[in-house]
Amino acid sequence: MCDTVDSGTQVAIHELGNRDGDSGEDIKGSWQEEIKEGCSRFVRSCCTVKTAKTRLPILTWLPTYRLAWLFRDFVAGFTVGLTVIPQGLAYAALAELPLQHGLYSAFMGCFIYCVFGGSRHVTLGPTAITTLMVAEYVNGEPVYAVVLCLLAGCVQFLMGLLHLGFLVNFISFPVLAGFSSAAAITIATSQVKLVLGLKNIPRSFIKAVPSIFQRITHTNLSDMGMGIVCFAVLIMLKKLKEVDWDKKRGTLLKPPLWKKILRKVLWLLGTVRNAVVVVAASLVSYGLLNRGISTFTLTKEIKPGLPAFQPPQFWLVKNGTVVKNGPEIIQDIGVGLVIVPLIGFLESIAIGKAFARKGNYRIDATQELLAIGVTNILGSFVSAYPVTGSFGRTAVNYQSGVKTQLGGLFTGLLVILALAFLTPSFKYIPSAALGAVIISAVIQMVEYSVIPVFWRVKKLDLLAFVVTFFGVLLLGIQYGIALGVGVSLIILLYPSARPRATVYPAHIAPDDVLIVQLESGLNFPAVDYMRDVVAKDAFKEKPYKNVVMRCCCVSDIDCTVVQALDQLIEEFEARGLKLHFSCMRVSLLSYDTHSLTHDP
Amino acid sequence: MCDTVDSGTQVAIHELGNRDGDSGEDIKGSWQEEIKEGCSRFVRSCCTVKTAKTRLPILTWLPTYRLAWLFRDFVAGFTVGLTVIPQGLAYAALAELPLQHGLYSAFMGCFIYCVFGGSRHVTLGPTAITTLMVAEYVNGEPVYAVVLCLLAGCVQFLMGLLHLGFLVNFISFPVLAGFSSAAAITIATSQVKLVLGLKNIPRSFIKAVPSIFQRITHTNLSDMGMGIVCFAVLIMLKKLKEVDWDKKRGTLLKPPLWKKILRKVLWLLGTVRNAVVVVAASLVSYGLLNRGISTFTLTKEIKPGLPAFQPPQFWLVKNGTVVKNGPEIIQDIGVGLVIVPLIGFLESIAIGKAFARKGNYRIDATQELLAIGVTNILGSFVSAYPVTGSFGRTAVNYQSGVKTQLGGLFTGLLVILALAFLTPSFKYIPSAALGAVIISAVIQMVEYSVIPVFWRVKKLDLLAFVVTFFGVLLLGIQYGIALGVGVSLIILLYPSARPRATVYPAHIAPDDVLIVQLESGLNFPAVDYMRDVVAKDAFKEKPYKNVVMRCCCVSDIDCTVVQALDQLIEEFEARGLKLHFSCMRVSLLSYDTHSLTHDP
Repeated sequence: MCDTVDSGTQVAIHELGNRDGDSGEDIKGSWQEEIKEGCSRFVRSCCTVKTAKTRLPILTWLPTYRLAWLFRDFVAGFTVGLTVIPQGLAYAALAELPLQHGLYSAFMGCFIYCVFGGSRHVTLGPTAITTLMVAEYVNGEPVYAVVLCLLAGCVQFLMGLLHLGFLVNFISFPVLAGFSSAAAITIATSQVKLVLGLKNIPRSFIKAVPSIFQRITHTNLSDMGMGIVCFAVLIMLKKLKEVDWDKKRGTLLKPPLWKKILRKVLWLLGTVRNAVVVVAASLVSYGLLNRGISTFTLTKEIKPGLPAFQPPQFWLVKNGTVVKNGPEIIQDIGVGLVIVPLIGFLESIAIGKAFARKGNYRIDATQELLAIGVTNILGSFVSAYPVTGSFGRTAVNYQSGVKTQLGGLFTGLLVILALAFLTPSFKYIPSAALGAVIISAVIQMVEYSVIPVFWRVKKLDLLAFVVTFFGVLLLGIQYGIALGVGVSLIILLYPSARPRATVYPAHIAPDDVLIVQLESGLNFPAVDYMRDVVAKDAFKEKPYKNVVMRCCCVSDIDCTVVQALDQLIEEFEARGLKLHFSCMRVSLLSYDTHSLTHDP
Repeated sequence: MCDTVDSGTQVAIHELGNRDGDSGEDIKGSWQEEIKEGCSRFVRSCCTVKTAKTRLPILTWLPTYRLAWLFRDFVAGFTVGLTVIPQGLAYAALAELPLQHGLYSAFMGCFIYCVFGGSRHVTLGPTAITTLMVAEYVNGEPVYAVVLCLLAGCVQFLMGLLHLGFLVNFISFPVLAGFSSAAAITIATSQVKLVLGLKNIPRSFIKAVPSIFQRITHTNLSDMGMGIVCFAVLIMLKKLKEVDWDKKRGTLLKPPLWKKILRKVLWLLGTVRNAVVVVAASLVSYGLLNRGISTFTLTKEIKPGLPAFQPPQFWLVKNGTVVKNGPEIIQDIGVGLVIVPLIGFLESIAIGKAFARKGNYRIDATQELLAIGVTNILGSFVSAYPVTGSFGRTAVNYQSGVKTQLGGLFTGLLVILALAFLTPSFKYIPSAALGAVIISAVIQMVEYSVIPVFWRVKKLDLLAFVVTFFGVLLLGIQYGIALGVGVSLIILLYPSARPRATVYPAHIAPDDVLIVQLESGLNFPAVDYMRDVVAKDAFKEKPYKNVVMRCCCVSDIDCTVVQALDQLIEEFEARGLKLHFSCMRVSLLSYDTHSLTHDP
């Protein structure tokens, strides 16, 4: 609260309109010095051991590494590898890229995060959300995907250098929940065509649904059977893994060894269920093919071997001629250059924080930005598409008891081995099995359970959720997120557009004076409202020749406010009244408002 | 400021995490009643004379109309008409639409605003900014332009019904200045090709500039000559009009009659300079053509006569087949459906307010939204593209001494007469003359003079200006505005992401307790920072088993905050510590936070 106004003579009345600007030079001088000072401080701080340890977490954990941890890291890394290989293939199919790109994207993050990563649990790689974004912005062109990977990495690295990690705080939980729910539904819908063996289904949700119903008669029954069986097995293995066997009998009775082993096997099967299902489905299709039965829709032949290490191409060649050059590719990707790195980082930091809480350690947003940025930059050299932290695989890593970031090394090596030796057998994988892998992964991302909570806690949060959800589903990712963030910011900002003010008359000789006391700061969304508040009483019947605006609570001011005050002064002058300002901070008194007005 | 904490026993300690949700039903009931109440209040309020007068301002001014005003309104309306005819043709060329659409767009607003408009000065019609947006979103297809007109009108009408006019308050002055400066430069660049007689220059600024330099050798010298002469004459006529003849000699000496008449003629020439220049240029090109000299690039032949009054077509036909249906057209226009109505309204309300200040009256944002919405909806029936209030022509209207909204009637009639009788002669208008008309209109929109003011008043406002300016110039209108609004909102919101908190120890028997006192409200951007503040002292050395968070200043809470608090409670439990909340409002105590967390 502000102190109340004294109606006596000690009220200093200043006129804002007549002040001249000043001290531009002084400000400039101190500003230059500040930059100089800041730079030298920055250079000094870059060269300390502490900085090196913050920026290269491997320097902290490697010197204290115990050999006993190696087995745990190996098991965890191997398990994560068995998850990421089928998922990588499936996500590449979702992104409409050649399948090998899913594996190209899966190993660089493991190695880089081992050096730069701040969390022992997080594993970087292709995820459902990034894949959906890649699908939206690259149109199935690997060249686009690689360019996006490089540029997204650069944006993230730059954000890290500038400490802009705080930006993700402006994406509220309802927006995030709405986005991931809509993304999950879009992804699941896009996979229905694989499970049903349908062709030529458009990507966007709003077009895909009627198209699927139109073509439902073309369903390939073998694909549908395979898809449903795979999906059922995946769900069953997941449930079996989650059963608490000791719940009924109490924990005192120790189970016999064979039961313990069986449970361990079930747990392992549940954890690597994606690999189990994909391998089993491939064996079935291989067996049938060998008997001359070609009934399943299979994935396309995969380019065997490791990707070349080369700088990303900035041109798109079709039939021997360059059809798109670098600037055209960048323009086609458009706002994806902002959305992909931002949402990718948001996903990664959310996961990192969740597991840091479980593991009682802290992670640093800036360091995560740098790690993910370097991963994407170097990833683009091995034809990867943008990656981020994966919630599912990070959970697998955590449950497998990983000890340090070294686990990632084994994951990466396993992916590289798969690329080197297994690619010829990938052509037997039924598409429907990959579709089932994706659907089972994203189905839990639909967050319907938060809706009653939003309703109870804050109804306007539900509005942000609904707007984001339908925006992403019907208009696409970028507009959905923009709308959702817009709505949640407007909800946050509405009070600043309606600042409180008290209006009352006071007697300052020789006239009566109207006092308008602002109870809070004055920002640009408030200018119209403020003008109305002042004008309502001041212009009604003209009993007051002077109006005093008390600005004790105004600690900062922006150009829009200065312009509005200037127009208000003009308006007062036009009516023969005077507007005064009192209790204004000295730092705010030197604005030359007249230079802001334009004559028509 | 909040009151300071008492360390005694009267501190009520509540645990947020263990509360169950309640009273969902109660809230729902009262909410339904509120809506019912609101509806009946709305219906009642719709049927009063006062509402009718507010919504149909013509009911206020027409009954008191004096015949003496008729001549003033006629002169003003006629003058505005002489301005809008050449401008309409030029803007249609800028929008890459057949030129008659510029005139189709110019008359509906005059009639509608006469009935619904709240300002006697504002004139609706095609403007530089809306035309640039139309050019960006409709790709030269009249069908798209008309669909956009209808939908933009619907959006504006709906915004009016929902009283959403306040939304434009969130577009700050620096963003507006940056946008209009960049728009002016883009428009002027796009007209350079007309003045130089160049062909096949792309529309976007970033592509147009190199393309113009590449093709500069193909300049048509006649076009260039015509363009430069027209531009020079326009500027000269404008300057002559603005000369203050009495300045030097003092105002006491009355000038002779012939001087007064000469000045009046100069003023009139200056005011209708666009028409003068276009007519003169057309006469020159007509004369040369009659002598068989076809040296100028002329405008294309215009469809003669008035437009048919018919519902807008929702399909695009090429060579007899429908190539785009309604949903495809809407998807192609995309975010234009939000940007065009919003920016259009923003322009109109800004102009309305500026002239309301000059004329000592008030205008109502909702009423302006309704007027402009109806104009665009009905405009689409006569093949218009979206219109808004025009700054230049509103100024002409004001200077011509318009008395009431009736002036618009004469403007509209003049445009209709021109369509009915003058269209055959429009084909002699040199394109370069139209280019010069546009360049001279937009050149004053480049607001370089505000840059030092931004620097002095608030440097971050300069950032918002620069981001918007380069965003619009290099990335396009929608991204530029989104970036600019984003930056200005982040500047506004940054303090809410860093709320102040005081942390100090207190003695509450039997243990020492750490008190975290929040000095302001808690909103979603602040959750990370708040967690860090609490964790920094509470987790460092573990001297405190209990931490109390005093929330006296927290008047409202959102789901993101509830989720973060819940995670914080979990984190405390994991370390064997306890987090308590005190001084929390009763209305905030009933949240069941556990339903918000997700297990991986």
